[in-house]
Amino acid sequence: MLYEGFMAGGVAAGGQLTTTTDVENYPGFPTGVGGIELTELYRQQSINCGTRIETLTVDRADLNERPFTVFAVDQSVRARTLIVATGATAKRLDVPGADRLWQKGISACAVCDGALPVFRDKPLMVIGGGDTACEESLFLTRYGSSVTMLVRRDVLRASKTMQQRVLTNDKIRIAWQTELVEVLGEQLVGGLRVRDNASGREREIEAGGLFFAIGHQPNTAFLDGQLDTDDNGYVLTAADSTATNVPGVFACGDVQDKVYRQAVTAAGTGCMAALEAERFLDRHG
Amino acid sequence: MLYEGFMAGGVAAGGQLTTTTDVENYPGFPTGVGGIELTELYRQQSINCGTRIETLTVDRADLNERPFTVFAVDQSVRARTLIVATGATAKRLDVPGADRLWQKGISACAVCDGALPVFRDKPLMVIGGGDTACEESLFLTRYGSSVTMLVRRDVLRASKTMQQRVLTNDKIRIAWQTELVEVLGEQLVGGLRVRDNASGREREIEAGGLFFAIGHQPNTAFLDGQLDTDDNGYVLTAADSTATNVPGVFACGDVQDKVYRQAVTAAGTGCMAALEAERFLDRHG
Repeated sequence: MLYEGFMAGGVAAGGQLTTTTDVENYPGFPTGVGGIELTELYRQQSINCGTRIETLTVDRADLNERPFTVFAVDQSVRARTLIVATGATAKRLDVPGADRLWQKGISACAVCDGALPVFRDKPLMVIGGGDTACEESLFLTRYGSSVTMLVRRDVLRASKTMQQRVLTNDKIRIAWQTELVEVLGEQLVGGLRVRDNASGREREIEAGGLFFAIGHQPNTAFLDGQLDTDDNGYVLTAADSTATNVPGVFACGDVQDKVYRQAVTAAGTGCMAALEAERFLDRHG
Repeated sequence: MLYEGFMAGGVAAGGQLTTTTDVENYPGFPTGVGGIELTELYRQQSINCGTRIETLTVDRADLNERPFTVFAVDQSVRARTLIVATGATAKRLDVPGADRLWQKGISACAVCDGALPVFRDKPLMVIGGGDTACEESLFLTRYGSSVTMLVRRDVLRASKTMQQRVLTNDKIRIAWQTELVEVLGEQLVGGLRVRDNASGREREIEAGGLFFAIGHQPNTAFLDGQLDTDDNGYVLTAADSTATNVPGVFACGDVQDKVYRQAVTAAGTGCMAALEAERFLDRHG
């Protein structure tokens, strides 16, 4: 029984993949596959294997005792095992133009999207000042004509090593104390309106791509603290396993992964969770 | 640069997947995909991404210092990072009929193949007495009319829990002190000739499927002990990572996984290794 959610975490059923256009790094599709197309293939495969799918969002779960109880809108089911695969949502800035040009030159994942032709040899903008923002900027230097990091404050949050690597890279420029105000462009991102936080003055800059690297929000609110998480809300799992602190509850995909976050790594941990849940049921009924 | 091997580990380039017919549990292929077909899709995708492929088997590697040196037949290359993805080879018994009927009712992976129509409602035979043999037997009870474990000795090597579960399962019978002598059948497995190790007497038994569960051999001989492994030869990696004990050398897939062993879990750790190798190069050049 799969609760696929209804616009859960702000994205369509299928999750973050539905917000990306071409997935080029999912093994098995030599010329790439559309994000939505891939989730539809998954969905059909689940149905073929006998999964019953409800397009409802689980808003609460009681993990105090087995069978667990899962609540979705007006229904509830009892479950002898539970796999949490609710993903994470990339944080975006809610400024004018950001919604309209989303995936038209705006992305929240440089590793997923950076190699797309639309970004080739363009001035690329990265928003954020942490390790991920640095890493994504370095990654984007392969594709863009230049990379500019827009950093709100006058320091980077990133580790010393990452700062060093970004600051010494010829292709990366840092716009300190600079905040995004608006995304400009007709069909595609053409520029940004930004504000200098020191002077309060606004200006327009040319941009051929915009990458949000301001973190992800794992979708764990419905668990209400019943599973152990790290400080950022990612579910903690045993080493090389999907087992959580509650026996019989497993977590896979981006809700427990802040390192790799690719479709195929999520599919891999999904398979691990299925096998572990199956073995758990074999042992505990 | 990918050395795909030439019949390395006794299987064709592409590895264990090439020895299986239908892969039904690889996410993205709702009606399944052929094992060989899937490896060809992978191969084409690698080429599209700029991989140079050599169909040679790496027979030696020098990991003492970076760049590492990799030797394949008459050539050698220097590598700033190395990903070991040499897999494992399922052990098979070399008896008459076993080669001829391989994948025609004989398998070395119940989880991969057990649900295939050819095994449905047939008497299924499992060879082995360890945890895996028990687990695969339990799994096969869903599909076969009965499951018989052929155990060489008069005890199981498996854990007490697994023994208990197998011994109390109505659908599982154990043929103690019984050894496989020959696989019988024309187009498909139809029976087995087995020997009773106590009396030395041979007899024929009806069988609609034969599963080897006598372990795997990870393909690490070429490393000559330069990477830390467990007692069974599986490469040890850091928790939730593909990093080995040698900085810059990563291991993914079945060469480091004796738990999950599915195509998609191997693809997932492959992606992890690629990302980790990339980050390593970014940091260390």
